[in-house]
Amino acid sequence: MFLTLKKGATKSQLEHLRKKINGLGFRAHISKGAKKIVVGVIGENAILVRDTFESMEIVDFITPISKPYKLASREFKKEDTIINVNGIKIGGKQIVVMAGPCSVEKKDLLIKIAREIKKAGARILRGGAFKPRTSPYSFQGLGEKGLKYLAAAKKITGLSIVTEAMTIEQVKIVEKYSDIIQIGARNVQNFDLLKAVGKSRKPVLLKRGIATTVKEFLMSAEYIMSQGNCNIILCERGIRTFEQSTRFTLDLNAVPVIKRLSHLPIIIDPSHGTGVRDYVAPLSKAAIAVGADGLMIEVHSKPEEALSDGPQSLLPKDFFSLMEELKKVAYAVGREI
Amino acid sequence: MFLTLKKGATKSQLEHLRKKINGLGFRAHISKGAKKIVVGVIGENAILVRDTFESMEIVDFITPISKPYKLASREFKKEDTIINVNGIKIGGKQIVVMAGPCSVEKKDLLIKIAREIKKAGARILRGGAFKPRTSPYSFQGLGEKGLKYLAAAKKITGLSIVTEAMTIEQVKIVEKYSDIIQIGARNVQNFDLLKAVGKSRKPVLLKRGIATTVKEFLMSAEYIMSQGNCNIILCERGIRTFEQSTRFTLDLNAVPVIKRLSHLPIIIDPSHGTGVRDYVAPLSKAAIAVGADGLMIEVHSKPEEALSDGPQSLLPKDFFSLMEELKKVAYAVGREI
Amino acid sequence: MFLTLKKGATKSQLEHLRKKINGLGFRAHISKGAKKIVVGVIGENAILVRDTFESMEIVDFITPISKPYKLASREFKKEDTIINVNGIKIGGKQIVVMAGPCSVEKKDLLIKIAREIKKAGARILRGGAFKPRTSPYSFQGLGEKGLKYLAAAKKITGLSIVTEAMTIEQVKIVEKYSDIIQIGARNVQNFDLLKAVGKSRKPVLLKRGIATTVKEFLMSAEYIMSQGNCNIILCERGIRTFEQSTRFTLDLNAVPVIKRLSHLPIIIDPSHGTGVRDYVAPLSKAAIAVGADGLMIEVHSKPEEALSDGPQSLLPKDFFSLMEELKKVAYAVGREI
Amino acid sequence: MFLTLKKGATKSQLEHLRKKINGLGFRAHISKGAKKIVVGVIGENAILVRDTFESMEIVDFITPISKPYKLASREFKKEDTIINVNGIKIGGKQIVVMAGPCSVEKKDLLIKIAREIKKAGARILRGGAFKPRTSPYSFQGLGEKGLKYLAAAKKITGLSIVTEAMTIEQVKIVEKYSDIIQIGARNVQNFDLLKAVGKSRKPVLLKRGIATTVKEFLMSAEYIMSQGNCNIILCERGIRTFEQSTRFTLDLNAVPVIKRLSHLPIIIDPSHGTGVRDYVAPLSKAAIAVGADGLMIEVHSKPEEALSDGPQSLLPKDFFSLMEELKKVAYAVGREI
Repeated sequence: MFLTLKKGATKSQLEHLRKKINGLGFRAHISKGAKKIVVGVIGENAILVRDTFESMEIVDFITPISKPYKLASREFKKEDTIINVNGIKIGGKQIVVMAGPCSVEKKDLLIKIAREIKKAGARILRGGAFKPRTSPYSFQGLGEKGLKYLAAAKKITGLSIVTEAMTIEQVKIVEKYSDIIQIGARNVQNFDLLKAVGKSRKPVLLKRGIATTVKEFLMSAEYIMSQGNCNIILCERGIRTFEQSTRFTLDLNAVPVIKRLSHLPIIIDPSHGTGVRDYVAPLSKAAIAVGADGLMIEVHSKPEEALSDGPQSLLPKDFFSLMEELKKVAYAVGREI
Repeated sequence: MFLTLKKGATKSQLEHLRKKINGLGFRAHISKGAKKIVVGVIGENAILVRDTFESMEIVDFITPISKPYKLASREFKKEDTIINVNGIKIGGKQIVVMAGPCSVEKKDLLIKIAREIKKAGARILRGGAFKPRTSPYSFQGLGEKGLKYLAAAKKITGLSIVTEAMTIEQVKIVEKYSDIIQIGARNVQNFDLLKAVGKSRKPVLLKRGIATTVKEFLMSAEYIMSQGNCNIILCERGIRTFEQSTRFTLDLNAVPVIKRLSHLPIIIDPSHGTGVRDYVAPLSKAAIAVGADGLMIEVHSKPEEALSDGPQSLLPKDFFSLMEELKKVAYAVGREI
Repeated sequence: MFLTLKKGATKSQLEHLRKKINGLGFRAHISKGAKKIVVGVIGENAILVRDTFESMEIVDFITPISKPYKLASREFKKEDTIINVNGIKIGGKQIVVMAGPCSVEKKDLLIKIAREIKKAGARILRGGAFKPRTSPYSFQGLGEKGLKYLAAAKKITGLSIVTEAMTIEQVKIVEKYSDIIQIGARNVQNFDLLKAVGKSRKPVLLKRGIATTVKEFLMSAEYIMSQGNCNIILCERGIRTFEQSTRFTLDLNAVPVIKRLSHLPIIIDPSHGTGVRDYVAPLSKAAIAVGADGLMIEVHSKPEEALSDGPQSLLPKDFFSLMEELKKVAYAVGREI
Repeated sequence: MFLTLKKGATKSQLEHLRKKINGLGFRAHISKGAKKIVVGVIGENAILVRDTFESMEIVDFITPISKPYKLASREFKKEDTIINVNGIKIGGKQIVVMAGPCSVEKKDLLIKIAREIKKAGARILRGGAFKPRTSPYSFQGLGEKGLKYLAAAKKITGLSIVTEAMTIEQVKIVEKYSDIIQIGARNVQNFDLLKAVGKSRKPVLLKRGIATTVKEFLMSAEYIMSQGNCNIILCERGIRTFEQSTRFTLDLNAVPVIKRLSHLPIIIDPSHGTGVRDYVAPLSKAAIAVGADGLMIEVHSKPEEALSDGPQSLLPKDFFSLMEELKKVAYAVGREI
């Protein structure tokens, strides 16, 4: 339930309202727009206390929210959310490209790749220090050492960093080195982890699970937002279907669906979404054409030596060409890279 | 198995070879390229008679085809197939747009729509006269009367026609009125129907089934080709997945996958692939960006009165705007509409 | 819409009612139960003419049917449908087992297998004469010769026959030799074929498609029933999912779901549903335990020589042991084999 | 890689071997069977140090394990694993039934349900104290208070307890009160949580994810086993498919598949697997018939008041009847309840 306040609500009236909401066992979420103030009454069955607010002087009208995700819904916030990462704006006119190796391995190599993707026009460096791997016997990532390599690459290139946290403990340390905390597809319903990053002040890149519906995906975003962190970048990275000629089926339908249901930005990961290097370029173009706000692409100088996901990584020179082509597509749909 | 012939093979040598192949119980498929002649030996276990051809003078070398689809494979034919429909070339530089109502209903309305889509830049008019409907109690199409309406619209506008044949009997009559015979998603493995259109000389638009893998899809094309008709336009129209926020999940991964495995052109149907009007425009742009050779889009002047699939049909004015935007995307990827 | 008549409706009243229904453009489906007569008014939007019947003397009450499948629904017919095939009752207390090779190949071998499955307790011989094959180069079945072999096996063993018709033309010839006409999974939405078997008087075994929902499945049954043939045996044979360790995922949930929604009998095909010989026995037991009315199992004396689906065929001796075990499971759930 | 030792290997030889393995950077897993000792060399690329062991006196032969899951595979351990929970043996002849409410709510009600399920023949009480919920605004469980209620119910009835831990922190506290630690479907690839329960000495009930393949499922079990805890009960609870008439599609194929690939016991959860009360009984029977080692069933005295999953919970009296029927099915397949 959302309360739209009358013009001219004073600070003390607002404070009074907040206490009222808390006193009834709910959380107040205050959103100050250019023209009006909207207050979310967050919690289960908030609608049952509607009467309490109807009679209040400063409440202009009450909007029951029909969606199970509230803060993430367009019903609550009409304007697109734009997330600011060190001056890079995600969700606006500019398409933001995040690139880098699947996992952080050697420091020199990482810096080399970082330089090359920057030259090509990427703004954010990706790379896993903590790696979720299906087999316990696969390479599990360098841990904090990997985060330090990322920080070194950032220092040299000025690129911002996005990297994954897999556990509540890792959130703290990832927060220290990274500009965006990534939550992986396998953790999209790891609710305690979602709550943990919800308490962080860093933007969160939330990947859709391979069998997560759009509605569940937005509900996972809501878990984060319900803790106060509304800086969420959604990421579609392929869903699991019967088709086996690609590793996953990239669900580009999800982009306009999410744009309709939510105000949050959404980016596409064609590297995981196809699992095949040759398909990354065409799907990247399609992602921009369909309306995505950014891309996350795996780039590796020596894909054949990569400890994970080599077959889907682009060579720097191919990434460079791709970026040139993407600029044209972005321009064609009224955006820029 | 394919036999690549030496340069200078004479007509009578070729005829001799064909008889030899037939005599062994196989079918010969002769493909004359600019530089060389390739002869397909079509039939089960053709490879077992390899020896017979190895010693033949005019045979340069023999290529066993590893794929279960042979004629449809890139291994057999390197160059893209371009299909000529009354001068419209499908599979080349130009993106071909087919548009029109889901089902043919009233003559005047059809002609009105045809005029509008032509003005917007569509080249081919779509519309169902025979309609496959999940319920026996739903509108089943006008039958031949509908075909006549399509012919009338063609006469007036000069647009070519694509419409569906659901049974072997209908193939004959559809062939008479239509420029392209459509095989619907539900009939993608109706093998006798595939064979029937394989004997037609008209191009075939083959829609992927909702649970057909890319390999099975190419095998269905192979059924048609094995009967001598190689003018096939593939069409991706959404696959069935767990996601329910759209009617189907449009599988755009399939475009680069098919481009790699086959030489046949492929178009996209975003109207069926999403089932929602608002999602048709973004997915159309994505289809062109990903490399599709064309689009099939539902357009209806009065979608609320349509007897089938109204909610996914565009209004002519929206189709007009969309075509303008698509031209820009086509240009961005080096193509044109 | 269904009209439940008052007791004592005369023949001429019934005839008058039928004419009335036809005159309004609908089809009348008269179902005489032990206690009452129910008349279905079949056709699109029948509910719009409800008023016409409300005032009629012989009509007791009117039931609008909410389901898009009407004749197939439990709302229309409360009691289980029991189908009589030469005295074998399908849908009653007895579990009916259909067994035999995937495709009919050699006459002697077929008769040998028929004798063995009969000894084991099967009542119906299965075997394909017309074979739908994904590749055009695979063995396509013996055609009418195969049907004759089946007839020969029937004559010798007394087993009834079930075999597939893939086209409208084949329906006639299959009808001649077979006791049950099978419609394969690929043809579950080949609506003209469904209508064709709907005009036959022979029972129809309708296989669920690999991506057909339960509702669509019942709608396909409705296509057949809408033409007057209500002797339909449904068959679940596995759906296509992401899981690749079995060829398909056998959906046993569908049995109680269909039992609730429909009065039609349903059997299970664990051979196609798993694609692996070793899994046929456990899934057969599960099928009986879950409430299926029968089984369709592939049995072949020399699976390694079978021209299709050898890897999923049981040896006669294994089928014999399985039947012994199935008897115990049937007994445990109050049924018998 | 596994080393099968010669008969008569001494304790000190074994200790020497273990040190050797550790020295090379691997973990030794020693499994003493009745007849022979098998030593697993666990870690990535263990096969590369094969030579080191080939020449060792006490090594009889070396088995490279082809599966990515090693300890969980039948290749490693031929005999079924039987897990002992306070004298209840899971994986042997007896089918073990776990029952109780979805979530623990009121103490009295829980004890009442516990008494009833015990009377009906269940051996283990289930109930969630920590609840993973798709929406952040849904009831999230009573936490430790819920665990205390479970302990109280255990004290009174003698039933053992199974309950879920969602985070590493919760593992410690769940361990304290529960006899089996449950890992839910959403956490099947929460690898750090898997490792945490791998270090516990309590048996683990590992639920399959809704889009987890059988191979990935076994790999998740391997994560737990790789930490030393081999007491794992697998649980199939439905996979996500296109079919929407049930909440999930219960994959009973998975039972014989897993029995072939692994020695671990597997149970079925028909309550979550169907999501509909009426379908629980038939699927429970099917689960036993297909070879499952147990069942997990939701039972609630007042399902309409349950804070989660009421519509799929059985009433105690229905559970009682079901248990009677299950005994017959168990008997029919040579097992008992």
